[in-house]
Amino acid sequence: MEFQKLIEQRYSCRAFSDQTVAPELIEKIIEAGRIAPTAVNTQPFKIFWLRSEKAKGHIRQASSCTFGADQFLIVGYQEEDGWERPFDQRNFADIDAGIVATHMMLAVEDLGLSTTWVGYFDAPMLKRLYPQMVGYQLIALFPIGYAAENAAPSERHFQRKSREELVEVL
Amino acid sequence: MEFQKLIEQRYSCRAFSDQTVAPELIEKIIEAGRIAPTAVNTQPFKIFWLRSEKAKGHIRQASSCTFGADQFLIVGYQEEDGWERPFDQRNFADIDAGIVATHMMLAVEDLGLSTTWVGYFDAPMLKRLYPQMVGYQLIALFPIGYAAENAAPSERHFQRKSREELVEVL
Repeated sequence: MEFQKLIEQRYSCRAFSDQTVAPELIEKIIEAGRIAPTAVNTQPFKIFWLRSEKAKGHIRQASSCTFGADQFLIVGYQEEDGWERPFDQRNFADIDAGIVATHMMLAVEDLGLSTTWVGYFDAPMLKRLYPQMVGYQLIALFPIGYAAENAAPSERHFQRKSREELVEVL
Repeated sequence: MEFQKLIEQRYSCRAFSDQTVAPELIEKIIEAGRIAPTAVNTQPFKIFWLRSEKAKGHIRQASSCTFGADQFLIVGYQEEDGWERPFDQRNFADIDAGIVATHMMLAVEDLGLSTTWVGYFDAPMLKRLYPQMVGYQLIALFPIGYAAENAAPSERHFQRKSREELVEVL
C-alpha cells in the first residue's frame, strides 16, 4: 500500500475477527522490524513471538488489551546493548526499539492485517514466566489479526494536537 | 511509494545535493509525525524546525552529521507528559517520540527526499541556545535534502542481525 494512505488509514484496532493469521505473514512483520535502522546499527532489541497456545494464554492473562487477536508479538530492548550519546550520556536503545516496532506496526497494516500498539501489559509477570525476557524492557505488545466487521477508530484517534501546538519554528 | 519498497530502499543518506527543499515538503513530514499514534494519545512530543539561517548555523555547530543538508528537524519529548504503565511505572514518552520520528523518517523518503536519523548532536548546547528546548529529551535530528549523486548506503546498512538472532519463539 502507498505509505501516505497507510499512515492515514491506520488506526488502533481493538476488535478482531476469528480468522487465523498465516505464520508467513508474521515472518514478514518480523522482517520489517529486522531491517529497521538503529543507532550506530547496534540493534539492541529482541522480538518475542508468543506463538504456542500456552504463550497465547499467558499474554491474555498479562493484558486486558488482547481483543481476541490470533497472534502476538512483543518488542523489547536491552539498554546495555544500546548506543550512548557522548554529549549527554543518553542511551538510544529505547528509541531503537521504538523505530523497530513502528516498522512492524505499519507492516501489519500493509499486509491487510490490523493491530494496536499495546503498552498496557504486565511486563513483570511475563518476565517471571519467560527467563528469555529478563533484562529486556518490554515496550510493545502487538495483538495481530484481521479487523472485525465492527472495528473502528476510537474517538481519541481524532483528537491529535494541532500543528501549531506541536511545532516550534526556530 | 509502496510501504514495502520504501522500507527496503531507505538508507541513512550522508551526502546531499545543493538543491533546496520546499517548505511545503517539510510541512508534510511534520504532518506524518503529527498523526502518529502515542500511548493513550498523550502526544508528549515536540518538533523543532530549525528553519532560519541562524538556526541552521547552530545545528551545523552542534553536530558533525549535517552532511550539507538544506533543512533540519529535531524531535523531542517531555517525560512528564508521557503515559506511565501501572505494572512497572514505565514511562512511554521516549517510545512515543520514537514512533513519531519514525513516521517522519519514512515520510521524508516517501516524498523523494533523503535523511539519516542522527543521534550524534550536542543536545545540551542546543538547549543553552533555545529555551524552547529546555525540558525536552532531544532524540532525533533529521538533516533533510535531496540525495547527492554519490550518496549510497554505508557498509553497516548491510550488517543487520539475522532473524534467528533477533527472534524468540515462545
